[in-house]
Amino acid sequence: MIIIGERLNSSRKAIRLALENRDEDFLIKEALNQVKAGAHYLDINVSALAEQEIELMKWLVPLIQSRIDLPLSIDSPNPEVLAVGLAVHRGRPFLNSLTLEKNRWTALIPLIKEYKPLVIALCLDESGLPDSPEKTLELAQRIREGLEREGIDITSVYFDPLVRPVGINFKAGVLFIQSLRLIKLKLPDAKTVAGISNVSFGLPRRSLLNRTLLALAVEAGLDAAIFDPCDGEMMATLKAAQALAGQDSYLKNFLKFIREKKSESQG
Amino acid sequence: MIIIGERLNSSRKAIRLALENRDEDFLIKEALNQVKAGAHYLDINVSALAEQEIELMKWLVPLIQSRIDLPLSIDSPNPEVLAVGLAVHRGRPFLNSLTLEKNRWTALIPLIKEYKPLVIALCLDESGLPDSPEKTLELAQRIREGLEREGIDITSVYFDPLVRPVGINFKAGVLFIQSLRLIKLKLPDAKTVAGISNVSFGLPRRSLLNRTLLALAVEAGLDAAIFDPCDGEMMATLKAAQALAGQDSYLKNFLKFIREKKSESQG
Repeated sequence: MIIIGERLNSSRKAIRLALENRDEDFLIKEALNQVKAGAHYLDINVSALAEQEIELMKWLVPLIQSRIDLPLSIDSPNPEVLAVGLAVHRGRPFLNSLTLEKNRWTALIPLIKEYKPLVIALCLDESGLPDSPEKTLELAQRIREGLEREGIDITSVYFDPLVRPVGINFKAGVLFIQSLRLIKLKLPDAKTVAGISNVSFGLPRRSLLNRTLLALAVEAGLDAAIFDPCDGEMMATLKAAQALAGQDSYLKNFLKFIREKKSESQG
Repeated sequence: MIIIGERLNSSRKAIRLALENRDEDFLIKEALNQVKAGAHYLDINVSALAEQEIELMKWLVPLIQSRIDLPLSIDSPNPEVLAVGLAVHRGRPFLNSLTLEKNRWTALIPLIKEYKPLVIALCLDESGLPDSPEKTLELAQRIREGLEREGIDITSVYFDPLVRPVGINFKAGVLFIQSLRLIKLKLPDAKTVAGISNVSFGLPRRSLLNRTLLALAVEAGLDAAIFDPCDGEMMATLKAAQALAGQDSYLKNFLKFIREKKSESQG
């Protein structure tokens, strides 16, 4: 499971403030904490400060990479910002995200060809969010065919079946899990990704809901997840779910994680 | 989901001691705590005190039922003890458990016909524990056919695909989940039950492993589970998993549970 740390996101007040103040120490600390907690990639989203977004992305990506040795996930609704982020990134980042929306698709395909990033592809198009697993699969298939037509290596693509708030539609969790299962069944070589925390938007006990969904997603075969790795119970649940889903030979990773947590809390 | 509280089990040292001392207050308190925490049935197992098992079962069942208004799960490897437990029980208990082992089957069928309990049927026979989902399903089908031949109402039967310790076989978790899914798929009217805590036997962070398995089992359609309802995070994970699996209309139960927990911790 690839862990993409979600904390460097301008929708969080503390990050927004740190961006406004160009608070390098705070932002680097947020990055280092996620690395220490076990992230493999760090998502970078500065879109809440839309007017400065290009400038901020150009500033933040090299700043973070000057202090940590991980690739990033360049995250924006704005293709121009994505272009800038990819241009200044060292190594192979995630592009977050491609969709079937025409303008977005047209703008991003050349960037994908030029920079060859890993691609997070959201299963949605102009008509909006899919409301069934079958429709989600159909969108994934259309993305895949479109990318193949462009000659883009499909093994770089992570399909996102979309996690939506269960507080708005109480069937949102099961829609996500069934969509994920259907994509893994019908496109067995497709990789998958999901932004877990969306599920708990507006609800109490967000961490409980997030980690429980992560456990279900692990068992359903999710390949990469965007969440807060500094949430210790989230990471513990990930390790437990991998152990229970037969994805952890002789429970080596689970037992190592528990040992390390123990020595941390004693140290 | 039917919750069967597991705490009144003589394999726990405190219970064993309380049974030896006929400590009514302690045993009743263990029962009341489980009721308060949300149990629908309480498992009663006195088998660690084998020589007094019949006498203890005959004493404990009425004692517990004198103070709580829930049915019990009469649990023993010994058919004679099960017979005594069923005879003194008021209401409709679970019988825990039937297997395909010949002596056990022969001894229990008359009891099932006489007392008409709900039946926990373990998917195992003389040849031992099944090592694949397909073998587990085959055992469930044989149990079902055997019961139908005896004219026993199949809707009273809960099939147990067997939870085994993931610390002994790291594929045990996935074997259980896949067996559960296969039984639900091939015998769609069959009900299912599982003893969750077995999965974490001998491992650190047992509660974490137990509640994560419970979440996976909820999503796979488990109908009843034996666990410790006094483990608050276990109950919270159950509610979260039901909300995420689309089993909780408008999240009514989840939100009610969280509200009650909050007022408890403030009260």
